[in-house]
Amino acid sequence: MLLEPFLNVSNGPDAIAFYEAAFGAEIVFLIPPETGSTIARMKIAGESFWLADESPEHQNPSPETLKGTTVRLVLTVDDPDAVFERAVAAGATVFWPMEDQHYGWRIGRVIDPFGHHWEIGKPLKR
Amino acid sequence: MLLEPFLNVSNGPDAIAFYEAAFGAEIVFLIPPETGSTIARMKIAGESFWLADESPEHQNPSPETLKGTTVRLVLTVDDPDAVFERAVAAGATVFWPMEDQHYGWRIGRVIDPFGHHWEIGKPLKR
Repeated sequence: MLLEPFLNVSNGPDAIAFYEAAFGAEIVFLIPPETGSTIARMKIAGESFWLADESPEHQNPSPETLKGTTVRLVLTVDDPDAVFERAVAAGATVFWPMEDQHYGWRIGRVIDPFGHHWEIGKPLKR
Repeated sequence: MLLEPFLNVSNGPDAIAFYEAAFGAEIVFLIPPETGSTIARMKIAGESFWLADESPEHQNPSPETLKGTTVRLVLTVDDPDAVFERAVAAGATVFWPMEDQHYGWRIGRVIDPFGHHWEIGKPLKR
Protein backbone atom coordinates (compact mmCIF):
# COMPACT_ATOMS: atom_id res chain seq x y z
CA MET A 1 0.00 0.00 0.00
CA LEU A 2 1.23 3.42 -0.92
CA LEU A 3 -0.58 6.75 -0.69
CA GLU A 4 1.08 9.49 -2.70
CA PRO A 5 -0.08 13.02 -3.48
CA PHE A 6 -0.06 14.03 -7.17
CA LEU A 7 0.48 17.76 -7.70
CA ASN A 8 -0.77 19.65 -10.75
CA VAL A 9 1.66 22.41 -11.72
CA SER A 10 1.74 25.09 -14.37
CA ASN A 11 5.30 24.18 -15.46
CA GLY A 12 6.62 20.70 -14.79
CA PRO A 13 10.32 21.25 -15.51
CA ASP A 14 10.44 24.40 -13.38
CA ALA A 15 8.57 22.63 -10.57
CA ILE A 16 11.06 19.74 -10.64
CA ALA A 17 13.95 22.20 -10.37
CA PHE A 18 12.25 23.98 -7.48
CA TYR A 19 11.54 20.81 -5.47
CA GLU A 20 15.13 19.69 -6.03
CA ALA A 21 16.46 22.99 -4.71
CA ALA A 22 13.90 23.52 -1.94
CA PHE A 23 13.58 20.04 -0.48
CA GLY A 24 16.44 18.05 -1.99
CA ALA A 25 13.86 16.00 -3.89
CA GLU A 26 15.16 13.46 -6.40
CA ILE A 27 13.51 12.23 -9.59
CA VAL A 28 12.67 8.53 -9.48
CA PHE A 29 10.55 8.41 -12.65
CA LEU A 30 10.24 10.94 -15.45
CA ILE A 31 8.23 11.41 -18.61
CA PRO A 32 10.16 14.37 -19.98
CA PRO A 33 8.70 17.61 -21.36
CA GLU A 34 9.71 16.58 -24.92
CA THR A 35 6.71 14.21 -24.88
CA GLY A 36 4.40 17.21 -24.62
CA SER A 37 3.60 16.84 -20.94
CA THR A 38 5.99 16.38 -18.05
CA ILE A 39 5.17 13.75 -15.45
CA ALA A 40 7.57 13.08 -12.59
CA ARG A 41 7.67 10.98 -9.47
CA MET A 42 10.01 12.46 -6.91
CA LYS A 43 11.27 11.41 -3.51
CA ILE A 44 12.14 13.52 -0.50
CA ALA A 45 14.15 11.38 1.90
CA GLY A 46 12.25 8.24 0.90
CA GLU A 47 8.76 9.80 0.80
CA SER A 48 7.37 10.07 -2.70
CA PHE A 49 5.01 12.31 -4.60
CA TRP A 50 4.04 12.92 -8.23
CA LEU A 51 3.71 16.07 -10.26
CA ALA A 52 2.58 16.79 -13.78
CA ASP A 53 1.82 19.69 -16.06
CA GLU A 54 -1.74 20.73 -15.43
CA SER A 55 -4.50 19.62 -17.78
CA PRO A 56 -7.68 21.41 -16.69
CA GLU A 57 -9.53 19.62 -19.52
CA HIS A 58 -8.95 16.38 -17.56
CA GLN A 59 -9.87 18.01 -14.25
CA ASN A 60 -6.20 18.41 -13.31
CA PRO A 61 -5.98 22.17 -12.73
CA SER A 62 -3.04 23.89 -11.07
CA PRO A 63 -3.39 26.18 -8.04
CA GLU A 64 -2.82 29.16 -10.35
CA THR A 65 -5.78 28.10 -12.49
CA LEU A 66 -8.09 27.49 -9.50
CA LYS A 67 -6.69 30.43 -7.52
CA GLY A 68 -6.14 28.26 -4.45
CA THR A 69 -5.33 24.73 -3.42
CA THR A 70 -7.49 22.02 -1.88
CA VAL A 71 -4.81 19.71 -0.46
CA ARG A 72 -1.69 20.82 1.33
CA LEU A 73 1.47 18.84 1.98
CA VAL A 74 2.69 18.23 5.52
CA LEU A 75 6.40 17.55 5.90
CA THR A 76 7.36 16.23 9.32
CA VAL A 77 11.12 16.52 9.71
CA ASP A 78 13.75 16.52 12.44
CA ASP A 79 14.88 20.08 11.74
CA PRO A 80 11.91 22.07 10.45
CA ASP A 81 13.72 25.40 10.73
CA ALA A 82 16.43 24.28 8.32
CA VAL A 83 13.94 22.78 5.83
CA PHE A 84 11.77 25.90 6.01
CA GLU A 85 14.73 28.25 5.45
CA ARG A 86 15.98 26.22 2.51
CA ALA A 87 12.52 26.28 0.88
CA VAL A 88 12.28 30.05 1.31
CA ALA A 89 15.80 30.52 -0.04
CA ALA A 90 14.77 28.48 -3.11
CA GLY A 91 11.82 30.79 -3.77
CA ALA A 92 8.92 29.77 -1.53
CA THR A 93 6.84 32.48 0.16
CA VAL A 94 6.27 32.49 3.92
CA PHE A 95 2.57 32.07 4.74
CA TRP A 96 2.97 31.32 8.46
CA PRO A 97 6.41 31.79 10.01
CA MET A 98 8.01 28.89 11.88
CA GLU A 99 6.67 28.98 15.44
CA ASP A 100 5.89 26.77 18.41
CA GLN A 101 2.11 26.27 18.41
CA HIS A 102 -0.16 25.67 21.40
CA TYR A 103 -1.21 22.32 19.95
CA GLY A 104 2.26 20.94 20.43
CA TRP A 105 3.98 21.38 17.11
CA ARG A 106 6.77 23.62 15.91
CA ILE A 107 5.50 24.39 12.44
CA GLY A 108 5.46 26.91 9.62
CA ARG A 109 3.84 27.09 6.20
CA VAL A 110 5.15 28.21 2.86
CA ILE A 111 3.58 28.62 -0.56
CA ASP A 112 5.77 27.31 -3.36
CA PRO A 113 6.15 29.17 -6.69
CA PHE A 114 3.43 26.92 -8.19
CA GLY A 115 0.84 27.71 -5.55
CA HIS A 116 1.13 24.52 -3.50
CA HIS A 117 1.16 24.91 0.28
CA TRP A 118 3.69 23.05 2.43
CA GLU A 119 3.49 22.80 6.19
CA ILE A 120 6.89 22.01 7.65
CA GLY A 121 7.14 20.99 11.27
CA LYS A 122 7.66 18.48 14.03
CA PRO A 123 5.85 17.54 17.23
CA LEU A 124 7.31 19.28 20.28
CA LYS A 125 8.54 17.16 23.15
CA ARG A 126 6.24 17.53 26.15
CA MET B 1 10.66 12.23 7.45
CA LEU B 2 7.01 11.99 6.63
CA LEU B 3 5.09 13.52 3.73
CA GLU B 4 1.33 13.52 4.25
CA PRO B 5 -1.43 15.10 2.22
CA PHE B 6 -3.90 17.29 4.15
CA LEU B 7 -7.37 17.39 2.58
CA ASN B 8 -9.78 20.27 3.00
CA VAL B 9 -13.37 19.04 3.14
CA SER B 10 -16.77 20.68 3.44
CA ASN B 11 -17.86 18.37 6.28
CA GLY B 12 -15.23 16.68 8.46
CA PRO B 13 -17.41 14.14 10.26
CA ASP B 14 -19.05 12.99 7.03
CA ALA B 15 -15.66 12.77 5.32
CA ILE B 16 -14.27 10.62 8.15
CA ALA B 17 -17.25 8.27 7.83
CA PHE B 18 -16.76 8.07 4.06
CA TYR B 19 -13.02 7.30 4.23
CA GLU B 20 -13.71 4.64 6.85
CA ALA B 21 -16.32 2.99 4.62
CA ALA B 22 -14.56 3.49 1.29
CA PHE B 23 -10.96 2.69 2.17
CA GLY B 24 -11.08 1.12 5.63
CA ALA B 25 -9.30 4.22 6.97
CA GLU B 26 -8.85 4.46 10.73
CA ILE B 27 -8.64 7.58 12.87
CA VAL B 28 -5.27 7.96 14.58
CA PHE B 29 -5.78 11.53 15.85
CA LEU B 30 -8.96 13.57 16.16
CA ILE B 31 -9.98 17.05 17.16
CA PRO B 32 -13.73 16.45 17.23
CA PRO B 33 -16.43 18.64 15.67
CA GLU B 34 -17.55 19.82 19.13
CA THR B 35 -14.47 22.10 19.13
CA GLY B 36 -15.94 23.99 16.20
CA SER B 37 -13.68 22.49 13.54
CA THR B 38 -12.94 18.84 12.90
CA ILE B 39 -9.32 17.83 12.30
CA ALA B 40 -8.41 14.19 11.79
CA ARG B 41 -5.36 12.18 10.93
CA MET B 42 -6.32 8.88 9.36
CA LYS B 43 -4.41 5.82 8.23
CA ILE B 44 -5.13 3.49 5.32
CA ALA B 45 -3.08 0.33 5.82
CA GLY B 46 -0.28 2.28 7.49
CA GLU B 47 -0.25 5.25 5.12
CA SER B 48 -1.50 8.43 6.71
CA PHE B 49 -3.27 11.59 5.64
CA TRP B 50 -5.01 14.51 7.33
CA LEU B 51 -8.35 16.14 6.75
CA ALA B 52 -10.08 19.16 8.22
CA ASP B 53 -13.15 21.26 7.76
CA GLU B 54 -12.37 23.84 5.14
CA SER B 55 -11.47 27.39 6.16
CA PRO B 56 -11.24 29.44 2.98
CA GLU B 57 -10.37 32.48 5.11
CA HIS B 58 -7.08 30.69 5.92
CA GLN B 59 -6.59 29.61 2.30
CA ASN B 60 -7.87 26.10 3.06
CA PRO B 61 -10.75 25.80 0.57
CA SER B 62 -12.52 22.55 -0.24
CA PRO B 63 -12.90 21.22 -3.79
CA GLU B 64 -16.56 22.27 -3.69
CA THR B 65 -15.53 25.85 -2.94
CA LEU B 66 -12.83 25.96 -5.65
CA LYS B 67 -14.86 23.86 -8.09
CA GLY B 68 -11.95 21.49 -8.67
CA THR B 69 -8.92 20.03 -6.98
CA THR B 70 -5.23 20.73 -7.41
CA VAL B 71 -3.73 17.60 -5.84
CA ARG B 72 -5.02 14.09 -6.31
CA LEU B 73 -4.30 11.03 -4.21
CA VAL B 74 -2.69 7.95 -5.71
CA LEU B 75 -3.37 4.67 -3.92
CA THR B 76 -1.15 1.82 -5.05
CA VAL B 77 -2.63 -1.44 -3.82
CA ASP B 78 -2.41 -5.16 -4.51
CA ASP B 79 -6.05 -5.47 -5.60
CA PRO B 80 -7.12 -2.19 -7.20
CA ASP B 81 -10.38 -3.63 -8.51
CA ALA B 82 -11.57 -4.49 -5.02
CA VAL B 83 -10.53 -1.12 -3.55
CA PHE B 84 -12.14 0.72 -6.46
CA GLU B 85 -15.42 -1.19 -6.13
CA ARG B 86 -15.55 -0.63 -2.39
CA ALA B 87 -15.03 3.12 -2.85
CA VAL B 88 -17.80 3.30 -5.44
CA ALA B 89 -20.11 1.25 -3.22
CA ALA B 90 -19.43 3.75 -0.43
CA GLY B 91 -20.49 6.66 -2.61
CA ALA B 92 -17.56 7.66 -4.85
CA THR B 93 -18.22 8.53 -8.49
CA VAL B 94 -16.34 6.81 -11.31
CA PHE B 95 -14.23 9.31 -13.27
CA TRP B 96 -12.12 6.77 -15.19
CA PRO B 97 -13.10 3.12 -14.98
CA MET B 98 -10.53 0.56 -13.88
CA GLU B 99 -8.50 -0.40 -16.95
CA ASP B 100 -5.09 -1.64 -18.03
CA GLN B 101 -3.26 1.40 -19.41
CA HIS B 102 -0.59 1.46 -22.12
CA TYR B 103 1.88 2.97 -19.66
CA GLY B 104 1.90 -0.23 -17.65
CA TRP B 105 -0.59 0.33 -14.86
CA ARG B 106 -3.99 -1.09 -14.11
CA ILE B 107 -5.69 2.01 -12.75
CA GLY B 108 -8.96 3.83 -12.31
CA ARG B 109 -10.02 7.13 -10.82
CA VAL B 110 -12.92 8.08 -8.60
CA ILE B 111 -14.18 11.36 -7.21
CA ASP B 112 -15.20 11.14 -3.58
CA PRO B 113 -18.33 12.87 -2.21
CA PHE B 114 -16.14 15.81 -1.08
CA GLY B 115 -14.62 16.42 -4.51
CA HIS B 116 -11.23 14.81 -3.92
CA HIS B 117 -9.88 12.61 -6.69
CA TRP B 118 -8.36 9.21 -5.96
CA GLU B 119 -6.39 7.17 -8.47
CA ILE B 120 -6.39 3.52 -7.49
CA GLY B 121 -4.06 1.15 -9.25
CA LYS B 122 -1.00 -1.04 -9.43
CA PRO B 123 1.88 -1.47 -11.87
CA LEU B 124 1.29 -4.33 -14.31
CA LYS B 125 3.82 -7.11 -14.49
CA ARG B 126 5.71 -6.99 -17.79
